[in-house]
Amino acid sequence: MNAITDQADVFSRFASFTAANDLIESGLYPYFLPLEGHDGTRARLDGRELIMCGSNNYLGLTDDPRVRAAAGQALDTYGSSCTGSRFLNGNIDLHQELEKELARFLGKPAALVMSTGYQTNLGVIAGLLTPRDHVVIDKGAHASVVDGCRLSGAKLRWFPHNDAGALAGVLAGLPDDAPRLVVVDGVYSMEGDLCDLPAVVDVCRRYGARLLVDDAHGLGVLAGGRGTAAHFGLTDEVDLITVTFSKSLASLGGAVAGSEEAIHYLRHHARSLIFSASMTPANTGAALAALRVLRDEPELTDKLAANAGHLRRGLAAVGIGTGVSATPIIPVATHGTMGTLHAWRRLIDSGVYVNPVLPPAAEPRLRVSVTARHTTAQLDRVVEAFAAVPELRGSRAYAGSGTTQS
Amino acid sequence: MNAITDQADVFSRFASFTAANDLIESGLYPYFLPLEGHDGTRARLDGRELIMCGSNNYLGLTDDPRVRAAAGQALDTYGSSCTGSRFLNGNIDLHQELEKELARFLGKPAALVMSTGYQTNLGVIAGLLTPRDHVVIDKGAHASVVDGCRLSGAKLRWFPHNDAGALAGVLAGLPDDAPRLVVVDGVYSMEGDLCDLPAVVDVCRRYGARLLVDDAHGLGVLAGGRGTAAHFGLTDEVDLITVTFSKSLASLGGAVAGSEEAIHYLRHHARSLIFSASMTPANTGAALAALRVLRDEPELTDKLAANAGHLRRGLAAVGIGTGVSATPIIPVATHGTMGTLHAWRRLIDSGVYVNPVLPPAAEPRLRVSVTARHTTAQLDRVVEAFAAVPELRGSRAYAGSGTTQS
Repeated sequence: MNAITDQADVFSRFASFTAANDLIESGLYPYFLPLEGHDGTRARLDGRELIMCGSNNYLGLTDDPRVRAAAGQALDTYGSSCTGSRFLNGNIDLHQELEKELARFLGKPAALVMSTGYQTNLGVIAGLLTPRDHVVIDKGAHASVVDGCRLSGAKLRWFPHNDAGALAGVLAGLPDDAPRLVVVDGVYSMEGDLCDLPAVVDVCRRYGARLLVDDAHGLGVLAGGRGTAAHFGLTDEVDLITVTFSKSLASLGGAVAGSEEAIHYLRHHARSLIFSASMTPANTGAALAALRVLRDEPELTDKLAANAGHLRRGLAAVGIGTGVSATPIIPVATHGTMGTLHAWRRLIDSGVYVNPVLPPAAEPRLRVSVTARHTTAQLDRVVEAFAAVPELRGSRAYAGSGTTQS
Repeated sequence: MNAITDQADVFSRFASFTAANDLIESGLYPYFLPLEGHDGTRARLDGRELIMCGSNNYLGLTDDPRVRAAAGQALDTYGSSCTGSRFLNGNIDLHQELEKELARFLGKPAALVMSTGYQTNLGVIAGLLTPRDHVVIDKGAHASVVDGCRLSGAKLRWFPHNDAGALAGVLAGLPDDAPRLVVVDGVYSMEGDLCDLPAVVDVCRRYGARLLVDDAHGLGVLAGGRGTAAHFGLTDEVDLITVTFSKSLASLGGAVAGSEEAIHYLRHHARSLIFSASMTPANTGAALAALRVLRDEPELTDKLAANAGHLRRGLAAVGIGTGVSATPIIPVATHGTMGTLHAWRRLIDSGVYVNPVLPPAAEPRLRVSVTARHTTAQLDRVVEAFAAVPELRGSRAYAGSGTTQS
């Protein structure tokens, strides 16, 4: 055992990971900024106020008085934690109330609430699939979908983004008796474009595949907030819909909606549900209150779409392309890692928070997102700030072939 | 494609899953009971009050006024959600404050906070390991450890529970240059026994393995709350410690503590951190307040140990064995699935909530847990209820070979 080498030390890999330190030394490290509080449209950083255009707080409900009051009320009634899994002692009637109202809102018979959106995709995919199964996913699917597929052990195949013909080709190549699931996002988090759901549904039907749509960015955004399947009138054709509560619903958690049989099965097979503590009462109360606001005020989503359109048009007017975005997620193309970071830093310095995206996550870009609460004045101020960034000149090249909506 | 068979339908497996429905029909289904609110020692179910002996709320802090006030204060200051990953827009100074105080409390240079304990083990293990690595875990390790190992793709080997000699045998069989990580629980969630940490540390040192201890059930319980490594005086010998906030710390979330280098690496490699929304402000505030209560009142853990001892002695006095438990987790052996469920139901009917454990999770048992807030009168009432359960006669056979503490 004296022969054990340095390579045997799993910590020896730390030394070769220098990328983050390089960025820190350059003064351009963009991650883990300690925000000192923010609402839908503003954030504080180092004592300065920024316009927040980099959150998933699409409806701006995190500081809505009704949402805060409901969270506080749940905290008072049930305490700060359920200290257990829903499977055992951590289940409260409030979880079940949220499930009932969410299922009804999404147009599905049943729903199952879990502690995070990430855990929802993990639990659903790994709970449903075994290593004997095949799972086929869009190249742009969220990391939690990928991790769920990996955890399941199922045979994983990708198809090019939104290419239903390629999906058909993959499914056609499977043995006739091979169990198969297709997973797509409703709205893609990097491009802000919609899934070509009519084509995907058609292919799934032809090849006997069940379909799961992760609608994290569609809930609260499309079809009066009911999401991508509702937008296309295809709710009944989508077998399972997963959503998250940390975006439009101003909380933390996630859920899957589907048939009674599917939800019953997942309640007893999703390990991330069974072996993890449940959503806290405050988080549950917040999500439920936000859902009710959304249900009762669908016009919030019109305001959101109008704001997204206003910002896209404003950026276009100063020569900045926003690709195929049809949602509040608006990507702005940049040139390389350093170009992205310099542009990001200039925007921060001029009072605008957006998120930089760097490879390998995706092609470099600035990821801008709008909320229903931004004012026109704020959005115009954001356009001005973008227009003043020299690194963004020529970003028009990014304007893609897709169509934009609203 | 007309040849696609029923087997190709991943939903066809629902029909053969009948176990839960069988239990529901028998009236003995014990899962997802909708509690109508509970504190450290009591729960309401169907309008009746039960003594809660089945939660992980070890210090009973979920209804502590300081914890509730801190959660409410964070909700007021930061809103109901951070609506983003800590990596990007979802990081607040409060997360970092919790990290600093937790690292200091655990005796490690740094810590990293994630949204759930389950996601912490997933993110740490899958972030650290690659398919080229070897991971060796105790047979009793928590499901989140197992899922983290599976997600990493590393070669997974198990060793018999708490058998450091067998662990040495596994490590000795690896190639000298094979990267290796050992993962154990500090306190095992099913038996309530402690890891034989001195022996495990010795073996890891001899065979050049890094060691991760999941101390979900040790934090707030052992060594004035500082956990299993501190209990054995081996904090410096354990490379990584993971904890959860949904047990003693009365919230939801988790953290990993270790060297600055390890934490820096994990901040940039843990996908469950990077691709999931951060702990909500309320959850963060609650965990931080509970940590401060624990730090300032370590005598809470003495009360907890005394309560556990009182209940163990009480059960022993009526002929009910509690195995190798040395903690507030007290397993009571039962006879088969139906024997377990009948005993569980009788206890519920007599006003005592405990959790049933059935295969394949583990050998059948009732899993009893105590908190620092239970009164002696409550615990005596629990013993009486157990003594009256005919299905528990003869459970003495379960009393194991281990030693009990306190």
